[in-house]
Amino acid sequence: MSLQAIHNIPEICAQLGITDVVLSPGSRCAPLTIAFARHPSIQVRTVPDERAAAFIGLGLAQAQRRAVALVCTSGTAGLNYAPAVAEAYFQQIPLIVFTADRPPEWVDQLDGQTIRQADLYGAHAKGSFQFPADTSHADAQWHAARIVSEAIGLAEQFPAGPVQINVPLREPFYPKPGEELRFEAVKVTRELPGRPQLPATALAELRDAIRSTSRVLLVAGQHPADTELLLALHRFAAAFQVPVVGDLIANLHLPAAPDYDQRLRPLGRQDVFMAVPEPGLKEALKPELLITFGQSLISKALKLYLRNARPAQHWHIQSAGPVADTFQSLTKVVRMEPADFFAALTEMPGTTESIIGSKSSDPGSIPSGTTTSTGSASYTTTPNHTAAQDATRVARPAAPAGTPRLVWPGSGGQLSDTEALAKAAYLKPWLAAENWATGFLQDFMRAPKQPFNEFTAIYHALQQLPDRTALHLANSMAVRYANILGVPAGRFVEVFANRGTSGIDGCTSTAVGAALAQPGRPVVLLTGDVAFFYDRNAFWHNYATPNLRVILLNNHAGGIFRLIDGPRQQPELEEFFETRQPLTAANTARDFNLRYLTAQSFAELESVLPVFFAPESGASLLEITTDSKTNAEFFEQYRAAVKSSFA
Amino acid sequence: MSLQAIHNIPEICAQLGITDVVLSPGSRCAPLTIAFARHPSIQVRTVPDERAAAFIGLGLAQAQRRAVALVCTSGTAGLNYAPAVAEAYFQQIPLIVFTADRPPEWVDQLDGQTIRQADLYGAHAKGSFQFPADTSHADAQWHAARIVSEAIGLAEQFPAGPVQINVPLREPFYPKPGEELRFEAVKVTRELPGRPQLPATALAELRDAIRSTSRVLLVAGQHPADTELLLALHRFAAAFQVPVVGDLIANLHLPAAPDYDQRLRPLGRQDVFMAVPEPGLKEALKPELLITFGQSLISKALKLYLRNARPAQHWHIQSAGPVADTFQSLTKVVRMEPADFFAALTEMPGTTESIIGSKSSDPGSIPSGTTTSTGSASYTTTPNHTAAQDATRVARPAAPAGTPRLVWPGSGGQLSDTEALAKAAYLKPWLAAENWATGFLQDFMRAPKQPFNEFTAIYHALQQLPDRTALHLANSMAVRYANILGVPAGRFVEVFANRGTSGIDGCTSTAVGAALAQPGRPVVLLTGDVAFFYDRNAFWHNYATPNLRVILLNNHAGGIFRLIDGPRQQPELEEFFETRQPLTAANTARDFNLRYLTAQSFAELESVLPVFFAPESGASLLEITTDSKTNAEFFEQYRAAVKSSFA
Repeated sequence: MSLQAIHNIPEICAQLGITDVVLSPGSRCAPLTIAFARHPSIQVRTVPDERAAAFIGLGLAQAQRRAVALVCTSGTAGLNYAPAVAEAYFQQIPLIVFTADRPPEWVDQLDGQTIRQADLYGAHAKGSFQFPADTSHADAQWHAARIVSEAIGLAEQFPAGPVQINVPLREPFYPKPGEELRFEAVKVTRELPGRPQLPATALAELRDAIRSTSRVLLVAGQHPADTELLLALHRFAAAFQVPVVGDLIANLHLPAAPDYDQRLRPLGRQDVFMAVPEPGLKEALKPELLITFGQSLISKALKLYLRNARPAQHWHIQSAGPVADTFQSLTKVVRMEPADFFAALTEMPGTTESIIGSKSSDPGSIPSGTTTSTGSASYTTTPNHTAAQDATRVARPAAPAGTPRLVWPGSGGQLSDTEALAKAAYLKPWLAAENWATGFLQDFMRAPKQPFNEFTAIYHALQQLPDRTALHLANSMAVRYANILGVPAGRFVEVFANRGTSGIDGCTSTAVGAALAQPGRPVVLLTGDVAFFYDRNAFWHNYATPNLRVILLNNHAGGIFRLIDGPRQQPELEEFFETRQPLTAANTARDFNLRYLTAQSFAELESVLPVFFAPESGASLLEITTDSKTNAEFFEQYRAAVKSSFA
Repeated sequence: MSLQAIHNIPEICAQLGITDVVLSPGSRCAPLTIAFARHPSIQVRTVPDERAAAFIGLGLAQAQRRAVALVCTSGTAGLNYAPAVAEAYFQQIPLIVFTADRPPEWVDQLDGQTIRQADLYGAHAKGSFQFPADTSHADAQWHAARIVSEAIGLAEQFPAGPVQINVPLREPFYPKPGEELRFEAVKVTRELPGRPQLPATALAELRDAIRSTSRVLLVAGQHPADTELLLALHRFAAAFQVPVVGDLIANLHLPAAPDYDQRLRPLGRQDVFMAVPEPGLKEALKPELLITFGQSLISKALKLYLRNARPAQHWHIQSAGPVADTFQSLTKVVRMEPADFFAALTEMPGTTESIIGSKSSDPGSIPSGTTTSTGSASYTTTPNHTAAQDATRVARPAAPAGTPRLVWPGSGGQLSDTEALAKAAYLKPWLAAENWATGFLQDFMRAPKQPFNEFTAIYHALQQLPDRTALHLANSMAVRYANILGVPAGRFVEVFANRGTSGIDGCTSTAVGAALAQPGRPVVLLTGDVAFFYDRNAFWHNYATPNLRVILLNNHAGGIFRLIDGPRQQPELEEFFETRQPLTAANTARDFNLRYLTAQSFAELESVLPVFFAPESGASLLEITTDSKTNAEFFEQYRAAVKSSFA
């Protein structure tokens, strides 16, 4: 067969913006390998373990925010991609998966490395294309090029995801020695994505509903860092005085535009305050209208709380694609991009006069005059204040009748004073809870005389994250611990986690991909021992990642199981749940030229962290060795303290 | 939900003969884990990396020749099984794959570790069952038990293969502390497999066709060692004087019953003599009727030869299931078990008289009288004799008219003398070629002044395999080298290789599973460095395998690519095909407590092999370090010698 149609593939990819390819060696895929390797504007890396290769590709795509291509040979190679493909599907990351195949007539004929590759990823790919086996006919040539364009378009369309192109190849696979490949001008099809808008009347109705509902809560699921969105969100929150809650993976903690109301910075300590067994607090936090965007939550406490709360209205803002009903209360799906939605509502002309006219006749909802500071400092850093102290801080006095109408700071005229005060009454306990949790954590984590344990070790490590870090949180305990603790305010720390499927299978590889994608930026992986050893082949390739820092929490077991009541009480705990394992990472570090540092005490940790994070240290691994039982006991103390400390 | 239906699962498995379960830790699968772990007659092992776990299960099932159950948690855990599931599908190994899942209503709701698990393995499972999420209704209880019986029956029915049972589970997952599980008597459905028989008339027609066709060739694909089959095959070959060819993975080389005709022991050196560019030989070997059974061939040379030969008839003997047309010449599929088919034909009452009557009238086909030894020794061990010398050894004189009819030795009266002589004329070049190849190899591999290279190293290692070894051959070069070289005659060496899909992804794990299954027997894995490091997690568990011996051929690259003309000539060879990698296995051996031995010369190899194979050495790894270029050059010399030595 002529291989020109194959040689056109990298050209089409390049024209459509793909810059990086991860391939795994093989014979059947040789024409693809050679074509990609020789294309002048595509960077090709080769990784032997396809499972790791696919997650490295995912990490590259996640960091670069554009599609990455994978290339593997025929047979089970493509099946080893399946975990990453599923993660990409649910995390909405575009991957173009080229699986080389035998020509169709040789499938099921007992040839080597031949399986049934059509639609290999089933329900976990956005689409599956069959490249023509023969491209001598002009229509087949058009079809071949068309498929590649279409696949890339499909992968990148929101919600983005993985797409398979199965490429049957007949021998000979190789150009003659010295033969040059031609990269011809190939016609490509470009997607120009539109941003859906709701009619103004529909938006106005939504805006009015938000305005007239006292208890409006905004919750963000996993979302890449997005300054446009962040700005729109901040302005929306300020305009409508709505509490905004997001896990670390929602990336709402990033330093935002300077003009936003500091009091309304998004909340992130829900794992702490939602664990407080205080019915009064829970009641005070209950939303009537829940607005969400983004993907999954980490905080199980928040998720279960919201499911239980059953808000009367739940709107999810998502421009396209299937929408989950995570809290069993979904009533509206708003088909706009979240940034557009929040901006549109905030920027609508205020129509507050008429509303004031109809609502300010009820002065009974306005608390009598207590003036207080609205500065942000007291809400964010002062430890040990009580919720009762907070209770006075939000309410503002109503303007006396006849004076010019007070515009609530930052509201842009969206709220009447009455509305603003109702909102403030709901906002107050959220801010108070966050504030309490922040103070509680600072006190608890820094309390003296702790046994060395991974929870506190992570707290200290996170405090020293370099600015501009891409923080990768492995499943399962690392991401949970970090979500409780948060990252230090004021530093730009972008957070990633494979929460599409929450697998442990590719967390390290994903971080390696990120480190390759952004060599000028620290990439820090926080991981446990099971996830780490599972995915050791992440390092098995020839590409340097001097910006990679791996913090390995080695408790020699799947420590999560000792933290859950169910398995902890079973005789099978150690053998079948924890799966005790004796490995240290010393040999792995030796195999892969990682600078190897250890910490087995707080003193060691403190002295080693600056070395570990220093840019000149190169690819480094910090193994924090703790005892699984001590960890469980300390975490139990933490849980008990949360329950008893809230006042 | 009541978990009794879950607790019944191990009981049903046990009643239907399953003894071994490999599970991987997880939360969602906890009820399955606990139920299996507590069942008194099931051995449970836990392996954290699901990819390795599934191949370990496959190795157990392959060795035990019965189904093994796998248990994993929800999410991508099950996708990591996919490579082993595909291998099991194409290698026909029964696996019962229990994938724990969220209840159906929580799929696609952004819950953690939740993917779309229904029919997870698509075209690579024999079936996929959905366990009921609620088992309170009596019908659901019956259905739950029914599914497990049915799945096991389906997995074990020929052709055996993997079956998925997706098990949705609601919390709580754990029994109360101290609570005992009940293993109730559950009704199971047992499969009683029948063996299909052809009508006697149909068999007689086939027998007559074999008798009347001069050039009948029998080729075996991959097949587990089977003494019943071997005996039937030997007797068939003797009765009909048919050459039998099989790769190592056909397991025809095993010592057979003492009564068979030594001359007719199956041939295995096809990789050598089929590489001889001798049109006369190729012509002489051409079959008119090709009979095959079993699965895939390793020998590409034989496969291409047979495709090119286009025999007028090709019968494949397989009792059920889809049949490949590997040689593009399939004319009949005989729906019997091969052992039954060969026995039936051999044991049919001889009807030679009438055939002799019609055929012996053509004396022209009978060579004139040359008497020669039919002893086997000269065909198997004498080196350096020529095909021309062989030419006189098979033909026998026709009996003079009027004398009692000569019954060809071992033929059981199936062939007339005329037929026997025609068969002998075809058999002769096959035996000669095999004989030549055996002698050639002995000379070539033992020639002095060789550089240290992996091909010769393997030859020496294979010579010292202990009796009763289960030999596991990894893809891709290890299995090819071994198939060229064969194993020493007279020793019981059973050969395994993952040739269902020919992947490198689970070769080590499969051998580990075999070692766990048969602790009283040496399990030797021959593997290359890419396959070895790919699947290092094979060792990452807490189960001892003192009978395991790993021979690692480390050339620090995917050496196969330097042996193929195409990639060898490309500038991408080292980076993108060979994928040079610097690892040695020293750290891996240290991590997993393997006795670590090395050989970098023939002298070292000779001195270390007895230590390595000694039973008291325990789990051991012998790393044979060679240079990829030297290997390629030596193998090139070997190829050249094959081409020039045949005379």
